[in-house]
Amino acid sequence: MRISELSATTDVPIGTIKYYLREGLLPAGHRSSRTTADYDDDHVERLRLIRALVRTGGLGIAAVRRVLAVIDDPDPQRLDVLSTAQDALTGGKGAEEAGGAETSRAPEARPVGPVHAWVAARGWPTGPGDPVLEQLEKAWAACEAAGIHVDDAMMADYADAIEQVARVDVAAVPQGADDAVRRVVIGTIMMEPVLSALRLLAQRHVSVRQAGKAAGVAPCSASHR
Amino acid sequence: MRISELSATTDVPIGTIKYYLREGLLPAGHRSSRTTADYDDDHVERLRLIRALVRTGGLGIAAVRRVLAVIDDPDPQRLDVLSTAQDALTGGKGAEEAGGAETSRAPEARPVGPVHAWVAARGWPTGPGDPVLEQLEKAWAACEAAGIHVDDAMMADYADAIEQVARVDVAAVPQGADDAVRRVVIGTIMMEPVLSALRLLAQRHVSVRQAGKAAGVAPCSASHR
Repeated sequence: MRISELSATTDVPIGTIKYYLREGLLPAGHRSSRTTADYDDDHVERLRLIRALVRTGGLGIAAVRRVLAVIDDPDPQRLDVLSTAQDALTGGKGAEEAGGAETSRAPEARPVGPVHAWVAARGWPTGPGDPVLEQLEKAWAACEAAGIHVDDAMMADYADAIEQVARVDVAAVPQGADDAVRRVVIGTIMMEPVLSALRLLAQRHVSVRQAGKAAGVAPCSASHR
Repeated sequence: MRISELSATTDVPIGTIKYYLREGLLPAGHRSSRTTADYDDDHVERLRLIRALVRTGGLGIAAVRRVLAVIDDPDPQRLDVLSTAQDALTGGKGAEEAGGAETSRAPEARPVGPVHAWVAARGWPTGPGDPVLEQLEKAWAACEAAGIHVDDAMMADYADAIEQVARVDVAAVPQGADDAVRRVVIGTIMMEPVLSALRLLAQRHVSVRQAGKAAGVAPCSASHR
């Protein structure tokens, strides 16, 4: 197909497609004449993947390039699909170093922050320089800066709930599939907005039930299960 | 303080502050001379709030304006802090119309989509035109379009887990505080990146535990359901 058709099929503007071509994220089309190139289903699929990473995942071009590199050529030495996918998403090697009891303690050289200590006390694998841990540190600190106090006990309640989410995630990791890393990366990213929407719907449900329990006080006195 | 000090305190560039002033998101400073204005702690707080909404919440200027309007002047008729906050975040009136058994079924005029049917069957309050439901529909469809199949049973597992997150959210809703809506809006937005980081950490933990259970066989030969 021509670039115009590729654009129409994927709903991505031609200018954006050309940008991805220039950046090397999208492989060049098969040259069909001096001025035109031909694109196929692989281009459609790759383009949809890039869009999902950019739009849903909020990834920048450099991060997209990194994720695509891992998806295209996963390190055969690394059998763990999940940690490979996490590294691609976070740009770090946290999961590679993490895993055992030996990494739940940072070396003396770097002081262990309260968030690291909290994660380690929970028994979750992490290590120094873990980008996911840094993400949690930043996000937790941002809550405090915004006047939203989240103490350790509340964070533990959230962590218990999220562990349940993670069990569903891990159960869905495809075993032995050629495109396992790709599917885990995409699945992790694409489920985020689903989980956000579920959270708002569930908040209502829980709130309505509580209001119902409080002797039918409006709004919403109907009791759901 | 001068605008330069406001910028230094909040780490927001002066150009961005001027843009927020022009857009009316940030109230004008107190004029101290013909060319200078004076800003106070309220400006600092408001600016931090705007930045949290834009950066962490990913909200556009129009959405920020809507959220600020609700926070500044919550409808006294609406006692339900949580649904007021949700409406501010989604720009809809979903929660207002939702709640009773009468809304778990759409009017004949509009066919009930499979996602709506799934939410209603779960007993979660929703109604036609509910923006959160539309968000879930879009996000679920995007997963399918990206080749990530999430069936009803798997979505139910995620929903069970997220309901636990929502219980923590609802328990944290401040009762009777003047700034309750503000705190719920900010809390909902600011917790998203915390939950995302927890999810990655928890995925690892669950995966490492499973690998351990599977007698050390890499990478997890245990049979998942």
